Amino acid sequence: MRQIHSTITADGELILAVAEVPEPEVGAGEIKLRIEAAPINPSDIGLLTGAADVSQMVAIDGGIRAPVPAAGMRAMAARVGHAMPCGNEGAGTVVAAGEGAEHLIGRRVAIIGGATYADYRVVKAAEALLLPEGATAEQGASCFVNPLTALGFVETMRHEGHNAIIHTAAASNLGQMLVKICAADGVPLVNIVRSAEQVALLEAIGATHVIDSSAPDFMKKLIAACTETGATLAFDAIGGGGLAGQILTAMEAAINARAGGYSRYGSEVLKQVYIYGGLDMAPTTFNRGFGMAWAMGGWLLFPRMKIFGNAKFAELKQRVANELTTTFASHYSHRVSLAQMVSPEAVAGWQARRTGQKYLVVPD
Amino acid sequence: MRQIHSTITADGELILAVAEVPEPEVGAGEIKLRIEAAPINPSDIGLLTGAADVSQMVAIDGGIRAPVPAAGMRAMAARVGHAMPCGNEGAGTVVAAGEGAEHLIGRRVAIIGGATYADYRVVKAAEALLLPEGATAEQGASCFVNPLTALGFVETMRHEGHNAIIHTAAASNLGQMLVKICAADGVPLVNIVRSAEQVALLEAIGATHVIDSSAPDFMKKLIAACTETGATLAFDAIGGGGLAGQILTAMEAAINARAGGYSRYGSEVLKQVYIYGGLDMAPTTFNRGFGMAWAMGGWLLFPRMKIFGNAKFAELKQRVANELTTTFASHYSHRVSLAQMVSPEAVAGWQARRTGQKYLVVPD
Repeated sequence: MRQIHSTITADGELILAVAEVPEPEVGAGEIKLRIEAAPINPSDIGLLTGAADVSQMVAIDGGIRAPVPAAGMRAMAARVGHAMPCGNEGAGTVVAAGEGAEHLIGRRVAIIGGATYADYRVVKAAEALLLPEGATAEQGASCFVNPLTALGFVETMRHEGHNAIIHTAAASNLGQMLVKICAADGVPLVNIVRSAEQVALLEAIGATHVIDSSAPDFMKKLIAACTETGATLAFDAIGGGGLAGQILTAMEAAINARAGGYSRYGSEVLKQVYIYGGLDMAPTTFNRGFGMAWAMGGWLLFPRMKIFGNAKFAELKQRVANELTTTFASHYSHRVSLAQMVSPEAVAGWQARRTGQKYLVVPD
Repeated sequence: MRQIHSTITADGELILAVAEVPEPEVGAGEIKLRIEAAPINPSDIGLLTGAADVSQMVAIDGGIRAPVPAAGMRAMAARVGHAMPCGNEGAGTVVAAGEGAEHLIGRRVAIIGGATYADYRVVKAAEALLLPEGATAEQGASCFVNPLTALGFVETMRHEGHNAIIHTAAASNLGQMLVKICAADGVPLVNIVRSAEQVALLEAIGATHVIDSSAPDFMKKLIAACTETGATLAFDAIGGGGLAGQILTAMEAAINARAGGYSRYGSEVLKQVYIYGGLDMAPTTFNRGFGMAWAMGGWLLFPRMKIFGNAKFAELKQRVANELTTTFASHYSHRVSLAQMVSPEAVAGWQARRTGQKYLVVPD
């Protein structure tokens, strides 16, 4: 069968191509899916292209190769020479099952766990999400990463004692899910987007606070939205540049405007930005003009779910299944085969991480 | 009496000068000190000069004035037009006392709480630290900020489950105290300094790991020190530039070298850098090449002490009193009167925040 492999060689080259590998066998309690749809999420791209300079890529038989700058090789050390299968999640039909899982044969399920850019994948039956009867593979392909991340943001807010959320790159599939979740749950949400078109898109699905970071009055509107919502928690998909710091600055300005008076160390209210993505791979940079009660850090889905506990995780997964075609509907701009996804044209497309441009891999 | 005032005017100017104010009166439970010595700590400088461009200062009667760039005025909004007394801490002799505090008259005490660059200060007797008999004002002047901050670092390490500490600008008075505390308490400490002279200074007082960030092999040595100590917690006095991010990168490299294998999201071990100072006021900037389990944030002494609790706070204060002339000895390069401290020459000196150049204000 075919499987997409990403390999970084010791002499500093990325090889991303279709490979032929043996079909996996099912064991007891396991199921074998024929993968029918798998999204390319931003969180897949780090493994797919690593630290390679994709602007220098050239086509090879069955894929592409591209140089890895010397400065990028340190972070790659542990994967040098290893062919890494790619694809975090996907959906497909069960074609074989081990002992105890036979009832799933013929059913459509969604999975997470890697190596989904392939013809087949074997997983534990208990870890798969059984899709509702009639759901298509495309509807089920993005069941885990975006829906659970969006739900995880709201759980993090509750867990850490905040009362509102700021979200960047908010016109993404994930951002649209978050708009719907927050509307349903009564959570004030400030959406930061990068164009007037994206403002219109989010307002059309009911978002209340939508702010265009490319507009000249961005900071003024952001401070006003922080004042209105009391937001002290943000989730940033962009990572690079100054936006995370601007958010902390706006939160602090809103807090100080409410509090009145001058404190030399700034407010005592903790302002938190979690960076959960890297749409902009440039350095993160900020002026520390927001007092001393601030924190910035990484946010990753599964370690968070461990904190929330198994019961909460199961509850969130059930919500995803229940609202699969409403709250958690995903939109794709491109559908590519395994061979097409590693063509130079497609790599340039998905690597650009443009909001509104989302690739779905359809192996067959 | 005289008191140093810092004022930012609405038209964007800093006035830093000696002012004449009425002498404060003592109430019940209060004491009045004649201030005999007060240090200029880096944490005082933000209030003293605000966002002013001190390179443009000019002398005025009793002090200096300097322009505040327009970009800096937003953060100053709450203090515009207010004359701010300065000086976080100091020591002096009790010259008057209210009901219940009469026994302290004639004794020398250390205090914290602001307005110590002055001839006199009234505080609650219960909040003062009674210095040992025979202690000089200079010995007692820096009893709170540096000693409790250094002790607070070690308490934070214990509280948050780390086992070693990295410290920057480590040749400072505070850094030298931390070397002695960690040696006494058996805490592995990695000291980052900025010159070969500072390496020699810290090694002379018994520091084990001292790394010069100006040397070409800095990152290699930092990774080696992280590997040896297992440090996943750092306290950074510098703030600006890339050092905080380099520390996270070194921690992650050490963790991955120990763990072996590649994880696309980096290690799951939380790596924490607290920025507690701003010796470099330039923007903080970092590449996010250290996985997703990282955090950066502000660290402030008194909110931390609230977390540790009153009993711990009292215990730490007692340790400071007990080890005043050993662990917690401070060194000053300049002694200035109230009038001298706001002369252009002295302002240029203390504003530069150079390690090893420390000013002590001696009002009389």
